[in-house]
Amino acid sequence: SIDGQRLWESLMAMAEIGPTANGGNCRLALTEEDAAGRRLLIEWCEAVGCTLRVDRVGNLFLRRPGKRDDLDPVATGSHLDTQPRGGRFDGILGVLAGLEVFRTLHEAGVVTERPLELVVWTNEEGSRFAPAMVASGAYAGVFSEAYTLSRRDRDGVTLGQALEATGFAGEMPVGEPRLASFFELHIEQGPVLEEEGEAIGVVTGVQGMRWFDLTLRGQPAHAGPTPMAYRRDALAAAARLIDRLQGHALADTSGATRVTVGCLEIDSPSRNVIPGEVRLTVDLRHVDEGELDALESRFERELAALAEAFGVETASERIWASPVVAFDAGCIAAVERATRAQGVPWRRMVSGAGHDAVQVSRVAPTSMIFIPCRDGISHNEAEYATPEHCALGAQVLCEALLERANR
Amino acid sequence: SIDGQRLWESLMAMAEIGPTANGGNCRLALTEEDAAGRRLLIEWCEAVGCTLRVDRVGNLFLRRPGKRDDLDPVATGSHLDTQPRGGRFDGILGVLAGLEVFRTLHEAGVVTERPLELVVWTNEEGSRFAPAMVASGAYAGVFSEAYTLSRRDRDGVTLGQALEATGFAGEMPVGEPRLASFFELHIEQGPVLEEEGEAIGVVTGVQGMRWFDLTLRGQPAHAGPTPMAYRRDALAAAARLIDRLQGHALADTSGATRVTVGCLEIDSPSRNVIPGEVRLTVDLRHVDEGELDALESRFERELAALAEAFGVETASERIWASPVVAFDAGCIAAVERATRAQGVPWRRMVSGAGHDAVQVSRVAPTSMIFIPCRDGISHNEAEYATPEHCALGAQVLCEALLERANR
Ligand SMILES: NC(=O)NCCC(=O)O
Ligand SMILES: NC(=O)NCCC(=O)O
Repeated sequence: SIDGQRLWESLMAMAEIGPTANGGNCRLALTEEDAAGRRLLIEWCEAVGCTLRVDRVGNLFLRRPGKRDDLDPVATGSHLDTQPRGGRFDGILGVLAGLEVFRTLHEAGVVTERPLELVVWTNEEGSRFAPAMVASGAYAGVFSEAYTLSRRDRDGVTLGQALEATGFAGEMPVGEPRLASFFELHIEQGPVLEEEGEAIGVVTGVQGMRWFDLTLRGQPAHAGPTPMAYRRDALAAAARLIDRLQGHALADTSGATRVTVGCLEIDSPSRNVIPGEVRLTVDLRHVDEGELDALESRFERELAALAEAFGVETASERIWASPVVAFDAGCIAAVERATRAQGVPWRRMVSGAGHDAVQVSRVAPTSMIFIPCRDGISHNEAEYATPEHCALGAQVLCEALLERANR
Repeated sequence: SIDGQRLWESLMAMAEIGPTANGGNCRLALTEEDAAGRRLLIEWCEAVGCTLRVDRVGNLFLRRPGKRDDLDPVATGSHLDTQPRGGRFDGILGVLAGLEVFRTLHEAGVVTERPLELVVWTNEEGSRFAPAMVASGAYAGVFSEAYTLSRRDRDGVTLGQALEATGFAGEMPVGEPRLASFFELHIEQGPVLEEEGEAIGVVTGVQGMRWFDLTLRGQPAHAGPTPMAYRRDALAAAARLIDRLQGHALADTSGATRVTVGCLEIDSPSRNVIPGEVRLTVDLRHVDEGELDALESRFERELAALAEAFGVETASERIWASPVVAFDAGCIAAVERATRAQGVPWRRMVSGAGHDAVQVSRVAPTSMIFIPCRDGISHNEAEYATPEHCALGAQVLCEALLERANR
């Protein structure tokens, strides 16, 4: 059984790279901090006999040999990049739990039938380069290699340039190696497990999500002499849109409709200038694909109404659509067996966040394991999971991996 | 009579300093561009026999001697600083029309009884350093010299440091020289004159304005797994506030209630993070002081309601309150006489924008002259006034100055 103390120490050591003021982490994808985190992981893995391969979109594959190295590996992993003010667990736990499994097997001298593979996917968060899960998406054939390498951050740097700059532009063709199955351990990032007093979530699928880049163009004018009725205020229009979409989402008593505007920027802002142009992002999610379509239509109608009400022009681009995903029944069952063996309260659940497992599930049998996080808070410096829950999740992961690798 | 062609050429020459992509100007207060504009003006004034004095908050006083230099000067002026994407006329017209009057008198060999003074007030726009009209405010004793010098821009640079850096930290005590009267020519910055087909506005006063810095603090969290009902979304709260205040202002059919949010910034924005903290500015205006009080109370109530509805903490600071101003009856009459002499349609009106004249009016008899601007647009690169209207405004200014300086 895995060493919870050692796992916790590796989590805390990783958190020392790119720390933020309030106890969180900032390791935006392919920055120097992210690269330092990757190097530390590679060092740890090589110390327990793993070999590294890097593909052309910077995904790291750390292989632990099996008895039958001609067979496809059973894999686990997640990501090491974080939000600008992110936490110490989102993604990182999934990677370091994989490392902990390898260390445990190494110490016990266990060699599995199939090889094991620990994968670190590039730019999962989508915060530096949109969309999220872009490099696991490339691996799964959802995005082309060229599309992935050409994603740009706010300063115009491409993902490809950032790979070169950090030394993580690998040689391995994207899509290699094929995986026999994939398991990802993650914090829930929501409040359900904690509220229900459950220690493990057996994840059966992931809700669908769509991302939009939006520009509202009105007319900048003086805040003083311009009568309200003459204005074409792009921020007032954005405010109406946000308020309407929030109201719509809140009105869904099932709680399944999710709408978030995470970024909003005024062009050349000044206190006494009516905003002439506003750019914002919209994130729509739902567990049901049809309802997600309906939500997108509602969004389009609200957007169209702004032209009339505020005299603004609107330009909206759907930059990403990740469909509702159902994980593999066999992998779900493997996680469920490993979970039952722990004798803790657990539940089946759908993930509200996207994960690399969403992409991998298109090309390999996949499922996920969730553990609770404090107050359901994530994408926040205060993000926290207890050492006990981390260890429990790693133990479930270990048993699911062993079952699959020795089958 | 003044030379409209020469005035237009000086306006276009000034517009070559700090041009923007779409035909506007960016000469934020006390930047290198603003300093270059000031130096050009000084050169022009010295060429027609003016002498320069600079006070400790960087206001420029350019004196044309009179027959009785023991008497207080009759003054005119405005500002040369602009919005980040401002126009070529706002402020600049008032300064260059004063120059044009001096050039005309110089050519004609006219010496007035009282000296004349052309004043360039520092940081009128309030865009780099808040509040607006801060250096004319210091001159008028509304703000202390220390307060004025300690205003900071977004990068933390103080107004005092910017004065030193540009070489405009003068020696003259703030409040000197006393002015016998002050006239300011300006574009209307609103649509009334153009719509009514009138060429001159005789400005009888200025509406009151109040500026607020606002912070809304909720909780950053993940856009995906966080149910709507659990969120403490600072941007959703800001959107509600803006939408409510807009609705309130639009509901005033008199058109006198004005509300603008010009700046809004999310702390560490990311597309899939619920905004945890938002900072915004609020600009409230009304021609009636009591109604402005009521508007502020309404704003406070809407703000208080956010705590309840969105679980956000709110912190609001009123950083500026400029009361409703009535100009001097004698100065208004002088402008009215000069206007009538032109034989053009005109009206009395109240200014919607703040002007340095607001501050000067506290310590010297003051009034203003407005000319129309195209589509009522200002604080916009497209801001435009015709050469004919500029010339007409300068002629009215010239006659009002002469009447007062020879009285
Ligand atoms: N797990 C996680 O934070 N993924 C980022 C993609 C998303 O926004 O759901
Ligand atoms: N004239 C002008 O644009 N003044 C700036 C102060 C204000 O916001 O009214």
